[in-house]
Amino acid sequence: MTEKIIYLDRKFRATFIDQMKQLAPNYRIKTELEVADLPNVEISLGWDRKYEKALLASDHLKWVHSISAGVDTLPLKTFAKKGILLSNGSGIHSESITEHIMGIILGYSRGLFQAQKAQLNKKWLGTSVHYQAVEKQNLLIIGTGQIGKMVAKKANSFGMACYGINTTGHPVDGFKQTYPLKEIKQVVSEVDIIVNILPLTEQTKGLFDEKLFEKFSSHTLFINVGRGASVQTNDLIQALNEDKLAFAALDVFEEEPLPEESPLWEMDKVLITSHIAGLTSEFQHKLMVIFLENLKSYIKSQKLTVNAVELTKGY
Amino acid sequence: MTEKIIYLDRKFRATFIDQMKQLAPNYRIKTELEVADLPNVEISLGWDRKYEKALLASDHLKWVHSISAGVDTLPLKTFAKKGILLSNGSGIHSESITEHIMGIILGYSRGLFQAQKAQLNKKWLGTSVHYQAVEKQNLLIIGTGQIGKMVAKKANSFGMACYGINTTGHPVDGFKQTYPLKEIKQVVSEVDIIVNILPLTEQTKGLFDEKLFEKFSSHTLFINVGRGASVQTNDLIQALNEDKLAFAALDVFEEEPLPEESPLWEMDKVLITSHIAGLTSEFQHKLMVIFLENLKSYIKSQKLTVNAVELTKGY
Repeated sequence: MTEKIIYLDRKFRATFIDQMKQLAPNYRIKTELEVADLPNVEISLGWDRKYEKALLASDHLKWVHSISAGVDTLPLKTFAKKGILLSNGSGIHSESITEHIMGIILGYSRGLFQAQKAQLNKKWLGTSVHYQAVEKQNLLIIGTGQIGKMVAKKANSFGMACYGINTTGHPVDGFKQTYPLKEIKQVVSEVDIIVNILPLTEQTKGLFDEKLFEKFSSHTLFINVGRGASVQTNDLIQALNEDKLAFAALDVFEEEPLPEESPLWEMDKVLITSHIAGLTSEFQHKLMVIFLENLKSYIKSQKLTVNAVELTKGY
Repeated sequence: MTEKIIYLDRKFRATFIDQMKQLAPNYRIKTELEVADLPNVEISLGWDRKYEKALLASDHLKWVHSISAGVDTLPLKTFAKKGILLSNGSGIHSESITEHIMGIILGYSRGLFQAQKAQLNKKWLGTSVHYQAVEKQNLLIIGTGQIGKMVAKKANSFGMACYGINTTGHPVDGFKQTYPLKEIKQVVSEVDIIVNILPLTEQTKGLFDEKLFEKFSSHTLFINVGRGASVQTNDLIQALNEDKLAFAALDVFEEEPLPEESPLWEMDKVLITSHIAGLTSEFQHKLMVIFLENLKSYIKSQKLTVNAVELTKGY
C-alpha cells in the first residue's frame, strides 16, 4: 500500500499534531519532504513553491489548505483540472483586519497621524489639526464578506453609514445599500471613506486606476488591505498628487516589500504599513480550528465543510 | 430698572441669538462689555479672565455656563460663597473624545504609529511590527461619567474587558467592575490600557505620580485626555525611561502648549496631541442645546436643568 502524507509547510504545536494523528491515523505527517515523499502527498497545508511542480505532477494530491484568505498566487486552474480541493484561511484575520481598518479611520479622522508627524518637529498643532467626526461619515466597503461585515458592524457602532460593493450587489446585513462591482464608478464619488478588502481576481486586478480615482471626492480617505495588484500604483500616486483624493493608507502593494525607490514612502498623504493588517496573536489556534474541521470531514467523505474555495471564482 | 445682560464670550450664529432673545426678552445680549455693563451681567456664557474681577465684585452675576466640561480653572469657591450657579459643557465632547481614545487604542495596538515612524526611514517593518489584538485586552477607564461610559461601550464592542474607577466605586453599566479612586494603586497593575478622563480636583491633582507608575505593568498603554495637572510630568518621563510602562498618549499637559524644551517631544514611547481630543465639528450646535435648555429653566425658575455643576465637588 502506498504511504499517504499530510505535508505541513511550517511547524505546529504538538497538541495540534496529536489531533491530526487522531483524525487521520493512516497518514504520515511531515514538515520536510524527501524526493521519495513527493508523489505521496495527499494533503498540503500551505503551498510551498519549491514542491509545486512535483506535487502537481503526482495524482495523489487531493486537498490544499491555504494559510491565507487570498489564493490568487496558487495554480487555481491546474487545481480545477485535476480536481484538487482547496480551502483557505478566510476568517482567521477578520478581527485583526477590522481593528486595523478602524484604527486607520479613527486615527486619520482625529488627526493622530498628523499629530505624530508634527511631534517630530516639536510643533504644537493646537486647533489647526485636520479633524472630522467619524460619526455620520459615509463608508464604502468593497467586499462584503466576513471581514466587510465585521467592519460594517464596528463602523455602524460609531454612527457611520455603511455602503457595500460585492459581485452582484446582493444585500448584506449591516449595509444601508449594496451595489454590484460593475457600478463602482457611480458609487465612489458619494462617500467619504473607501476600503478595499477584495481578493485578487480577474475582475479586481488593476481595478483602482486613473479612471476610477477620477471619480473620487477630493476629501476621500482610501484604505487598501485587499491586494496590492488591485491598485495601479502609478495612477494612485498621480491621483494623490492631483488631489483627486485626500489620503491613502496602504497595507498591500504590487511589489512587497515596497521597493525603496517607490515615491509612496515620502508622500505626505500616504500611510504605509507592511502587510500587517492580518497579523494575529492566536494565528495557529485559529488556523487549526478550520484545518482540523476540514480534515475530519475529508477523512470521512473526501469533502470540505469550512472555507472551501470555488476554484472558478478564486475565493 | 437695571439693565440685565447675558454676556457671550464669543460670537454665535444669528439663529442661536434669536432663540436666546425669544427665551429671555428682557435681557440684552452682548459679546463685548463696556465698563458700565460689567455690574449688570447676570449670565455669562464662557468665563473671560479680563472681566473676572469686575463680575465677581457685582451682586448681579447669577449664572455662569462653562464652555468646557472641566471647570477647574474657575473660581469655584467664590461662586459657592456668592450663590452663583454653574453649568458646564459636559457631553459636547463625548463622541470626539471617545473616537480619539479608540483611535489611540487601535492605532497603538495595530502598530500604526510605529509604522508611520518607520515610513519616514523607508523601513519595511514586515512582521517585526509590535502589535497585539485589541480583543480581550483589559481596559481601565478612570472616570465613569458620560465619556467613560461611551468609551466602555465601544471598547466592549471590540471584545475588550472594561474596568472603571470613580469616586465611590459605584457600579456603572458597561463596566465588568468598578473601584473607588482610593483603590487605584491595586487596580492599575491588573490591566493593559489605562485611560484618564477625570476632571481636575483636589483628589486628582498629581494623581499619577512615581508611586502610582511604579504599580503599572511594563506593557501598559497610558492615555491622558483628562487634565494635564493630574499627571506629574517628571515622574511620567522617569517611569517611561525606566520601562514602568510601554507607551503614553498625551493630549493634555501641565503647561499648554507643551514647551519646546520638554523632553516628551523626543520620546519614542510618547504620542503628543495638542489638546485636540474634544474638537468637534458641531460645537456651536451642541453647546447651544445645553445652554438654551438651561436658559429656559433659568428664566422660568432660576434653576438649571442640564449639566449643573456641584461647586463643592468641582464637576
